[in-house]
Amino acid sequence: MNMSSYESLTTGSAVSLVKKLGLFAESETLSSREIGDGNLNYVFHIKGKEKSVIVKQALPYAKVVGESWPLTLERADIENRALRLQGKFAPDYTPKVYYSDKDLAITIMEDLSHLEIARTGFINGEDYPLIAQHTGEFIARTLYSTSDFAMGPQEKKKLQNTFCNPELCDITEGLVFTDPFFDAETNDFEEGLRPDAEKLWQDSNLKLHTAQLKRLFLTSGDALLHGDLHTGSIFASETETKIIDPEFAFYGPFGFDIAHFTANLFMNALSREDSRREPLYAHIVTVWDVFNREFTRLWKENNTEAFAKTEGYLEWLLADIFEQAAGFMGLEMIRRTIGLAHVKDLDGIEDEAARLQAKQRSLAIGARFVKERHQFTSADQLVSAFQEGLQ
Amino acid sequence: MNMSSYESLTTGSAVSLVKKLGLFAESETLSSREIGDGNLNYVFHIKGKEKSVIVKQALPYAKVVGESWPLTLERADIENRALRLQGKFAPDYTPKVYYSDKDLAITIMEDLSHLEIARTGFINGEDYPLIAQHTGEFIARTLYSTSDFAMGPQEKKKLQNTFCNPELCDITEGLVFTDPFFDAETNDFEEGLRPDAEKLWQDSNLKLHTAQLKRLFLTSGDALLHGDLHTGSIFASETETKIIDPEFAFYGPFGFDIAHFTANLFMNALSREDSRREPLYAHIVTVWDVFNREFTRLWKENNTEAFAKTEGYLEWLLADIFEQAAGFMGLEMIRRTIGLAHVKDLDGIEDEAARLQAKQRSLAIGARFVKERHQFTSADQLVSAFQEGLQ
Repeated sequence: MNMSSYESLTTGSAVSLVKKLGLFAESETLSSREIGDGNLNYVFHIKGKEKSVIVKQALPYAKVVGESWPLTLERADIENRALRLQGKFAPDYTPKVYYSDKDLAITIMEDLSHLEIARTGFINGEDYPLIAQHTGEFIARTLYSTSDFAMGPQEKKKLQNTFCNPELCDITEGLVFTDPFFDAETNDFEEGLRPDAEKLWQDSNLKLHTAQLKRLFLTSGDALLHGDLHTGSIFASETETKIIDPEFAFYGPFGFDIAHFTANLFMNALSREDSRREPLYAHIVTVWDVFNREFTRLWKENNTEAFAKTEGYLEWLLADIFEQAAGFMGLEMIRRTIGLAHVKDLDGIEDEAARLQAKQRSLAIGARFVKERHQFTSADQLVSAFQEGLQ
Repeated sequence: MNMSSYESLTTGSAVSLVKKLGLFAESETLSSREIGDGNLNYVFHIKGKEKSVIVKQALPYAKVVGESWPLTLERADIENRALRLQGKFAPDYTPKVYYSDKDLAITIMEDLSHLEIARTGFINGEDYPLIAQHTGEFIARTLYSTSDFAMGPQEKKKLQNTFCNPELCDITEGLVFTDPFFDAETNDFEEGLRPDAEKLWQDSNLKLHTAQLKRLFLTSGDALLHGDLHTGSIFASETETKIIDPEFAFYGPFGFDIAHFTANLFMNALSREDSRREPLYAHIVTVWDVFNREFTRLWKENNTEAFAKTEGYLEWLLADIFEQAAGFMGLEMIRRTIGLAHVKDLDGIEDEAARLQAKQRSLAIGARFVKERHQFTSADQLVSAFQEGLQ
């Protein structure tokens, strides 16, 4: 990558670029706004009379901590290549990519602004009746299609080698799998939560389970993950679902993506009145049903593995995925509560006592998911355990 | 790699090369012999008055099946880089590398002909009192030093990416983890073993366990393995041990190398009278003791993992390594009995009935190791199970 050619886009230069590329006529008047609310990128929304596009540019540092956390721009290339692969295997749920420039770390893609970020919608009480079905299909299709089973081990290894993503994995390894379990500087929580955090730091059984799950994340290369599939990475409406921002993509364990989606639904449920939690529970059960069904369908349709028909193999694999996912789910709930990166679902609860209670529940339920993951075998059981945590 | 520049060495051109490199004087008279007994390489032994070297060149196909199984020459580069890393972490047990040429797939290294191939020695009734200690140290040091624990996840991922070895992994995936469990063309066994082989092909529980172990081999990147650490890859004497031929090196599961060493000791034991098995049992217990002790020492001395001191983590990890190794051990015994690549320990038993019995035992004990791997927690237990298999 030629770093010297890197230059940050502005609202103006982003317009020049899309015109130069012929995506719009030179003469057309375009509006251009920076709309990024993430921490790692500029996102320009460029709109003409009849169409619009998104221009995304990776920043050479993480915005959340100023310029002090430098990041290479390779992640833009990873995101671009992940989007193209996800678009191949799950075209209905992936934004179209029109153009990419590796040196400038730019991807130009489909504008999805007719949709809403699902996290925001859920917080505002929206429901997306198809989101769980679509997301379950997205995860099953992108994971299965990039696994040894679909690709064969040789092609899979070659693809895996092009998705080495040490830098962004490092963020996850630190913020999800490590810091929340120690009195680390990156942690961030209100004083009222300190006793709960301290209890957690002293729970050596929880730490042992976390270490085991971290090892899985560090060493297990099942499939090309999205790597950051929370409800803030999903654009949705009543009828459509699009999964964005796969810059954390790498070859990791099968259970990771679905765990993050599920955990974020649970955290939204924590922010709601009990009478309004049912649709989220239904999504959690649905995403698992759909994932299992779709993974099974693909397994039977296209499988290079000689042991594919061995009695019990698929069932064992799905159970293994579920068990690891229950653990990853719990870790996501814990880190979003006391780690560096929070979720608005919990932070946005206005009443202080209610907010504290929701966060305490998030920690306790999360810890239970981690420690008892071997005991859970269905999404219904997870929902029941969650409900017990509300008592 | 510039394939057009590749040319097979001859005994003559190998001499020219070592002189050109200044390893010997131009005027010196050198003897040169091709001594390779492997399937994938030429090995020239070049000897002058006072010193000698080994010139190894990878062939662009596997000799065992003529030219019909083409292989890229990249494995010579992998072997060369693996030797250099193993030489860094376990210098006492690794041949010195003097020179390498990527285009010609050549590595020139220390001559070890004052030592014996351990398999041959064991077959001839030799013992190598230090082989288990040395091999245990070699495995613990090379594996630990290339793991996340020692290197940290970022550096480890970068190193892992330089050891993508799809082609040679494919050989292992086929010959160790797949073909012996099906009526595959590559299998090779005497008619007397057919009932045992068929029983094994119908054992769906064994196949399920094999599929699970294969998934581990396909997806688990703990450390840089040797990848083919049987007793034919070890040069030994009473006092020295050198591990050669790491062309199968790649990032795989911790338990793989030690399993292959152990399995090959067990197979040698099968070829012996009962009164002469004890030294092999002692080696098996020793290699595990040393591995555990050395891994533990390194873990405590140099560990980047925040959870390193978490109660029970190291113990859990060592138990996990043991369990997977018990499984890999069983698979190695099975594939060396009915798969494509046999061991001389078993094939060399002259009496037909005794040979058949030893092979039947190898299959039965191997299958037990695979299926009951979750129950074994110590090398002593493996030895007891082995002895039960001799009844």
